[in-house]
Amino acid sequence: MTPDRLAAMLTQVQQGALPVEQALERLKHLPFEDLGFARIDHHRTLRKGFSEVIWGPGKTSQQIAAIAARLVENGQPALITRLDENKAQEIKISLPALVYYAEARIGALGERPASRTDLPVLVIAAGTADIPVAEEAALSAEWLGNTVERLYDVGVAGLHRLFDSLDRLRAASVLIVVAGMEGALPSVIGGLVDRPIIAVPTSIGYGASFGGVAALLAMLNSCAAGVTVVNIDNGFGAAAAATLINRPDDEQANKG
Amino acid sequence: MTPDRLAAMLTQVQQGALPVEQALERLKHLPFEDLGFARIDHHRTLRKGFSEVIWGPGKTSQQIAAIAARLVENGQPALITRLDENKAQEIKISLPALVYYAEARIGALGERPASRTDLPVLVIAAGTADIPVAEEAALSAEWLGNTVERLYDVGVAGLHRLFDSLDRLRAASVLIVVAGMEGALPSVIGGLVDRPIIAVPTSIGYGASFGGVAALLAMLNSCAAGVTVVNIDNGFGAAAAATLINRPDDEQANKG
Amino acid sequence: MTPDRLAAMLTQVQQGALPVEQALERLKHLPFEDLGFARIDHHRTLRKGFSEVIWGPGKTSQQIAAIAARLVENGQPALITRLDENKAQEIKISLPALVYYAEARIGALGERPASRTDLPVLVIAAGTADIPVAEEAALSAEWLGNTVERLYDVGVAGLHRLFDSLDRLRAASVLIVVAGMEGALPSVIGGLVDRPIIAVPTSIGYGASFGGVAALLAMLNSCAAGVTVVNIDNGFGAAAAATLINRPDDEQANKG
Amino acid sequence: MTPDRLAAMLTQVQQGALPVEQALERLKHLPFEDLGFARIDHHRTLRKGFSEVIWGPGKTSQQIAAIAARLVENGQPALITRLDENKAQEIKISLPALVYYAEARIGALGERPASRTDLPVLVIAAGTADIPVAEEAALSAEWLGNTVERLYDVGVAGLHRLFDSLDRLRAASVLIVVAGMEGALPSVIGGLVDRPIIAVPTSIGYGASFGGVAALLAMLNSCAAGVTVVNIDNGFGAAAAATLINRPDDEQANKG
Amino acid sequence: MTPDRLAAMLTQVQQGALPVEQALERLKHLPFEDLGFARIDHHRTLRKGFSEVIWGPGKTSQQIAAIAARLVENGQPALITRLDENKAQEIKISLPALVYYAEARIGALGERPASRTDLPVLVIAAGTADIPVAEEAALSAEWLGNTVERLYDVGVAGLHRLFDSLDRLRAASVLIVVAGMEGALPSVIGGLVDRPIIAVPTSIGYGASFGGVAALLAMLNSCAAGVTVVNIDNGFGAAAAATLINRPDDEQANKG
Amino acid sequence: MTPDRLAAMLTQVQQGALPVEQALERLKHLPFEDLGFARIDHHRTLRKGFSEVIWGPGKTSQQIAAIAARLVENGQPALITRLDENKAQEIKISLPALVYYAEARIGALGERPASRTDLPVLVIAAGTADIPVAEEAALSAEWLGNTVERLYDVGVAGLHRLFDSLDRLRAASVLIVVAGMEGALPSVIGGLVDRPIIAVPTSIGYGASFGGVAALLAMLNSCAAGVTVVNIDNGFGAAAAATLINRPDDEQANKG
Amino acid sequence: MTPDRLAAMLTQVQQGALPVEQALERLKHLPFEDLGFARIDHHRTLRKGFSEVIWGPGKTSQQIAAIAARLVENGQPALITRLDENKAQEIKISLPALVYYAEARIGALGERPASRTDLPVLVIAAGTADIPVAEEAALSAEWLGNTVERLYDVGVAGLHRLFDSLDRLRAASVLIVVAGMEGALPSVIGGLVDRPIIAVPTSIGYGASFGGVAALLAMLNSCAAGVTVVNIDNGFGAAAAATLINRPDDEQANKG
Amino acid sequence: MTPDRLAAMLTQVQQGALPVEQALERLKHLPFEDLGFARIDHHRTLRKGFSEVIWGPGKTSQQIAAIAARLVENGQPALITRLDENKAQEIKISLPALVYYAEARIGALGERPASRTDLPVLVIAAGTADIPVAEEAALSAEWLGNTVERLYDVGVAGLHRLFDSLDRLRAASVLIVVAGMEGALPSVIGGLVDRPIIAVPTSIGYGASFGGVAALLAMLNSCAAGVTVVNIDNGFGAAAAATLINRPDDEQANKG
Repeated sequence: MTPDRLAAMLTQVQQGALPVEQALERLKHLPFEDLGFARIDHHRTLRKGFSEVIWGPGKTSQQIAAIAARLVENGQPALITRLDENKAQEIKISLPALVYYAEARIGALGERPASRTDLPVLVIAAGTADIPVAEEAALSAEWLGNTVERLYDVGVAGLHRLFDSLDRLRAASVLIVVAGMEGALPSVIGGLVDRPIIAVPTSIGYGASFGGVAALLAMLNSCAAGVTVVNIDNGFGAAAAATLINRPDDEQANKG
Repeated sequence: MTPDRLAAMLTQVQQGALPVEQALERLKHLPFEDLGFARIDHHRTLRKGFSEVIWGPGKTSQQIAAIAARLVENGQPALITRLDENKAQEIKISLPALVYYAEARIGALGERPASRTDLPVLVIAAGTADIPVAEEAALSAEWLGNTVERLYDVGVAGLHRLFDSLDRLRAASVLIVVAGMEGALPSVIGGLVDRPIIAVPTSIGYGASFGGVAALLAMLNSCAAGVTVVNIDNGFGAAAAATLINRPDDEQANKG
Repeated sequence: MTPDRLAAMLTQVQQGALPVEQALERLKHLPFEDLGFARIDHHRTLRKGFSEVIWGPGKTSQQIAAIAARLVENGQPALITRLDENKAQEIKISLPALVYYAEARIGALGERPASRTDLPVLVIAAGTADIPVAEEAALSAEWLGNTVERLYDVGVAGLHRLFDSLDRLRAASVLIVVAGMEGALPSVIGGLVDRPIIAVPTSIGYGASFGGVAALLAMLNSCAAGVTVVNIDNGFGAAAAATLINRPDDEQANKG
Repeated sequence: MTPDRLAAMLTQVQQGALPVEQALERLKHLPFEDLGFARIDHHRTLRKGFSEVIWGPGKTSQQIAAIAARLVENGQPALITRLDENKAQEIKISLPALVYYAEARIGALGERPASRTDLPVLVIAAGTADIPVAEEAALSAEWLGNTVERLYDVGVAGLHRLFDSLDRLRAASVLIVVAGMEGALPSVIGGLVDRPIIAVPTSIGYGASFGGVAALLAMLNSCAAGVTVVNIDNGFGAAAAATLINRPDDEQANKG
Repeated sequence: MTPDRLAAMLTQVQQGALPVEQALERLKHLPFEDLGFARIDHHRTLRKGFSEVIWGPGKTSQQIAAIAARLVENGQPALITRLDENKAQEIKISLPALVYYAEARIGALGERPASRTDLPVLVIAAGTADIPVAEEAALSAEWLGNTVERLYDVGVAGLHRLFDSLDRLRAASVLIVVAGMEGALPSVIGGLVDRPIIAVPTSIGYGASFGGVAALLAMLNSCAAGVTVVNIDNGFGAAAAATLINRPDDEQANKG
Repeated sequence: MTPDRLAAMLTQVQQGALPVEQALERLKHLPFEDLGFARIDHHRTLRKGFSEVIWGPGKTSQQIAAIAARLVENGQPALITRLDENKAQEIKISLPALVYYAEARIGALGERPASRTDLPVLVIAAGTADIPVAEEAALSAEWLGNTVERLYDVGVAGLHRLFDSLDRLRAASVLIVVAGMEGALPSVIGGLVDRPIIAVPTSIGYGASFGGVAALLAMLNSCAAGVTVVNIDNGFGAAAAATLINRPDDEQANKG
Repeated sequence: MTPDRLAAMLTQVQQGALPVEQALERLKHLPFEDLGFARIDHHRTLRKGFSEVIWGPGKTSQQIAAIAARLVENGQPALITRLDENKAQEIKISLPALVYYAEARIGALGERPASRTDLPVLVIAAGTADIPVAEEAALSAEWLGNTVERLYDVGVAGLHRLFDSLDRLRAASVLIVVAGMEGALPSVIGGLVDRPIIAVPTSIGYGASFGGVAALLAMLNSCAAGVTVVNIDNGFGAAAAATLINRPDDEQANKG
Repeated sequence: MTPDRLAAMLTQVQQGALPVEQALERLKHLPFEDLGFARIDHHRTLRKGFSEVIWGPGKTSQQIAAIAARLVENGQPALITRLDENKAQEIKISLPALVYYAEARIGALGERPASRTDLPVLVIAAGTADIPVAEEAALSAEWLGNTVERLYDVGVAGLHRLFDSLDRLRAASVLIVVAGMEGALPSVIGGLVDRPIIAVPTSIGYGASFGGVAALLAMLNSCAAGVTVVNIDNGFGAAAAATLINRPDDEQANKG
């Protein structure tokens, strides 16, 4: 319900084309759909540039399937994050078209959107154990309409593995850097490139890593300018932010 | 020392135009300048898109003045963040051109760069007490070459104050949202706009705010997609990230 | 043992109607019942306005069944919170009248009390995953004698879903607002209504939500006046407090 | 901008009594006043039942004086919490009518509202050192229109001091219980009365009290039903919540 | 190796009754027994007043059985704490005399020592769910040679259940007070009796109890004098401390 | 108000020697004295074995002086802990008899009680910097009626300094062991003696000592049996607990 | 790619022996091998003195087997730490030569290197439950080329068990001291020997040990000079550091 | 009191050259000197390889001066760490030979020992603000008998500044790496050299650096092998550990 549409509607009221009661109703009922346990925000694509994504935990398979089905019926792709394998199997019974990416723990339904721009989002994982979170970021970014590249196992204890790919680092539009343990990789990369870096701490580690807190704090305290941070293991959040940053020139131009 | 320049130099070596020893030296001595207590990174503008910024705490007035003087001599503006008033007065003795912004605790020397693009970075402060951090962000963003707009005291306890400015929110290229206490503002704004949001928690609050930790955690756990976070009170960090995101179309085009 | 009853008893002693020894005994033995592993506080209804509620964790099925049976024998309903399904099945063997609400993890025995007042307690859940805690609150409030309404999945990332129900928010006597992740919903609602808000943080989230701590801190630091907080996931505690607030006018009048 | 007023305005538009542009403006400009550094929410009294209260920290004396002056000019009392003595002296220069309560660190301007009801809010302090926070609560509650009673130094290490006042505890409409150190007092009182208890942890203590965290956690974990909690040292927050609970019968009746 | 025995040995050396080498050996080899994975401290009874107790976690059934067997062979009882049921069953195969107390998770072998004094150690549990830890304390205290009394489910939310037993509280030599959640019980009891109180926080609770931290902090911050604290769930530690406090008069006299 | 006195009073009522109203009053008014800001618990000596001790922080000099004066007028000594030097000077104006111990930050008024027993309480400080807390413990213990010995600077990094005093360790009735940094001393001493050890963590240290938390945790996790713990820097609390443990034989005998 | 090799390569370029393009390639491709999910750092032996060690968690059996196979093919031993038994069984199918040490959770392939020096690394465990971490350290140290000795169950509660082995402590080149609970052992040993001590906190303990945090903090705050610390349970890390310290004299001489 | 000296003494006893009582005394009185508030450990040089160092905080100027004077009288240098400027001035009155290093906050008395070996300890500081802690480490290492080199301001955001000094990194015997903020430098250096690295986190930073905790955690979680850690800001501790590692070959040889 943008100001433009509000003005248009008020004009209709003034012209008698729209009764007061209906206008009032319309103002109150913005486009969401109430399933009882969930209110689907069909309006979100318009407002945010991408449709509502379903966060799996704490929802039953039935609830997830119902929400996903309604999204698909409205012509939107349905992406489900943090979906464990058992729930995915159960959902497939009613929605056999569901594709399940086990490593990334993502379920997807519908058509994957085309890339809006060729500028790549580069997803980097410090270690092999960080790959599941990196894949959550990479797959999400692809489904949100980005061209995605991957660069894995380039941790700071062997920097030449990173330097080998310096040109790929510098060609990216946005970098998503996924790291656990001491979380130093975004700081190192932040010193090398002039593109925005979204740092994703992972819960990989043990003892005083405190489930990713060590990496999170390191990233928040990065001495390299241009690094911002999302929650521990939040690959999807990084992808969503990268999508908003990585927009095609014409979209940006229209905006201004 | 980009791959292009490396190839060029190696060609010179091959052609005998550059002796091996000199090439070796050049490879080792990248452009920084050693003052003993500090190594000034004159190369950073090239690498990062903006010059080195001086972080004030833990440095003496003499050290800050020496670094700032060298930057200005190299034709770069010098920005000093977290500069307390006493040090600023002392630096002014040797560098009388220093401009000091007391609320933002920023000192600046040299020419402020022109804006690279008209798309504004919008800096939002939830409460009056958050304004110093917001000003650190806004001033820094201006000195890093951005057009900046400000919107202050629009906290979630009186949402109509925010909704009144909805069009300004939606016209921005990047939003820097500064909030203390419960840190809810970035989540609310994140549901309204389709632009990247950099959330800055502030240490404003008391008791269980734990010096900004409550706001930091709220921002990291935001249910709104597209929100990334910087350290508590890190207005400059937000400005630097916004600068990397908010680049002019031609710069972006060249990149791809 | 109120002051009134104490005076009455002392008068009996003075009149010789009650021997000293018996009075002493009576003074010492207030009405609880010792089962060995538990001391049932039959006096609580008188003192608190509602009967003792059984907290399930750390008690065996046998212990729970014994306490519940004694409450019902005394004409009180028995409510068991945090009751897992296995224990519920075991208790049903000896107490087949037990009704088990799986989503809320509540077991109930006996007659549900009539509502003492028509003013509704409104239970709001920010997301679908917060519903179990919201149901613990809603069911508990009903069994403690309140009219209860529910409003689910109205999180801050899509505020229009909340605004659509603004009239229901404003008609409530007390609002119980259940939210995980960044816990921003009580602050937003606190700016919209003039009724007491009891905020319930949930353990929904991951990473830096720290099992609900992020939401708890956000709620404690709410910039909206009138918000008070209970423990993480403590739906019952919110219901009990709401019951004490939501009392009928005549009860309140008698009090004054 | 309630639904009623929205319908009325739309009717005016329909009848041609209000041009579209003006309606649009009105919809956007809800009643707040922009001072640049602050947006005064004159609408709050209507929405929340009491006017905006000024939180002192992080605001300059000039800013506070400007906001307070505008509130008084609009016929509202101005209450400033967490106001340190120096700022109070500076504000008095421009606003000599300011009354400053040093122990509670509260400044007040204008007419104190009459009590809306005779049912008392009872403010209890566990120890002498907790009195400043208790006074912030008590004074705030008085200025928000409540009859207030005080009961100080009744900590759990000498319970007879509390039991002596049992009748006052039971006569209160709402109890605000202020305690530092181990924070046990709300739990003990919660077992004795059937009225809502708002627990206020204080930062009184040392070592493992962690600035009030020990008391806060104890209150959140209270085994007594009906206890809700506000932030550490948040006397005003407790008073605001108590005000919303302690409303006169007729107000309550109108509501239903 | 007390000073007395050291002097005796040196006299033997002086008199030629003990060669230097043997004395040196003896000085180095104090009485423990090396099983490779464990060094049994047979000397401890002499030094501490009670024999070594085996802490179960992290030891295999085989290791526990071997240590216990050696203790019993030396005429000492063997007490194993934190012994889970499976290990107990495995140990019973080689040591069928093992008695296993499931609620307290304690295994015992050999003769339980007679009580050294009639003054009782009183073990108090705030709630039914705290009983396992209370039983670890009570059983341990019995096996360390104390007369033990138990008082369970006397939490602060119904103080009359505690006051009913005031005479038992005051007759005890030492009180072990076991409580989870807000951990207020030791403070209340500390205001009523003049005997040492050992407070044992339990991990009973949820959310902001943080596995017993809330109770631990409350106990450390107790405003009642005479309360000392042991680790969360450390029933045995409380029993050991109580044993050292609760010694018979003649033992105490010998000491002086 | 013990059961004995309750029975006596009821007999008086029965015999008509005491009117009901007076009995009721008496039951309600236990012996404390209300100064408005403080309720002095004159009854405490009877109940706890030592009189009320005044905790200095958060009280004004006037408040402290008033409470101390009333205690002395009632024939009790007045001990003020955590008293800073400025307040002590101010109190001396109205109460010139006040003795101030600067290192221990204790003020004392009245007659120091004689030692109730010759068995010494031994106060041990790990390092020189721990002495102020050790002195708070030692002086408090003396004023509570104990014979006190001191042993300072015997930290675990030079164990022979401790072993040199092994006989003094073993002759003590109770040991108060004060240590900061890693807090290892109580564990080491706990392996050497068979007397109760009260461990006092101090805030001495830096960095990851977290104001004494490292020492506190070490003491709570001590592998030596018989160690109990008080709050960080709580020398007085240790002295109070030691006093309850260290009682003369006849007192103990009477008890049983 | 050391400076020496860089100069050599540049000389080749100058002499025309190496085309520019190939030199550029060589500079970029340092010796690692990309398996897609992992980049094996074959260069590490040269750079660090020992080959890459595989950290098991977060890697699939297939991934581990592939990396290990490549290392062995390159003539390096393959050590896998934190390898759980199930994965070890799966790896053995493709790599039957794998040796699995269950207590240390280490898998090993290839030839164990000979000891580079006779000076022993001494691994000490405070308690029996700390042995698994101690074994991870001991076995790792052996596979990294050290002579290793073990001394287990010598905790501070029975110091004579430690003193018995004083000569072994003093003969070691480096000491790895593994302890959980209060973590006091490294401080005590640090006062006795003049060799470097690497302290390893373990997660052994309960309650306020917080998974090894108590021990970690104690070790970081050790008052004994010469103690450094690694992460909780990080036996391998201690072994790696010990290996770098414990080098043969000739290696050290070459270095200087 | 080494085993050798114990045997010698026992031989004297056997030969009648030493009476039993004197031997007993000697065994008990190891060489320390009791100043009442401090026990000076003159034996430490022998035992640890360097003399006792005085930690300044919590000691009065008088106490520090007395201890330092006694050390110098015994022919040992006296090093005082964490000495603030005021205390240094006061100590200079009685001990005018005191040299005070203001940046490192170190006071020194007596002769600085000669270097025991030419192999340098290299002290690295990530930023200018880390220099004070680095200087505490460097100066301490010099006074403990090491050759020291310094390399400052080589943080990870401009890695070429570090790579420029790669040969100095690789020539060091031990590296002390001092860093605040995200603490990533030791991990990066750990991947480049084969020498032991002692990481020192500093309290430099703000917000979520939590006084150095972020850096501390990063260092404990370092993915680079061979990194061990000391307490936040503990420059001296790092120097002491480096001294024990960096010993001359002949010392090491004697040992074996």
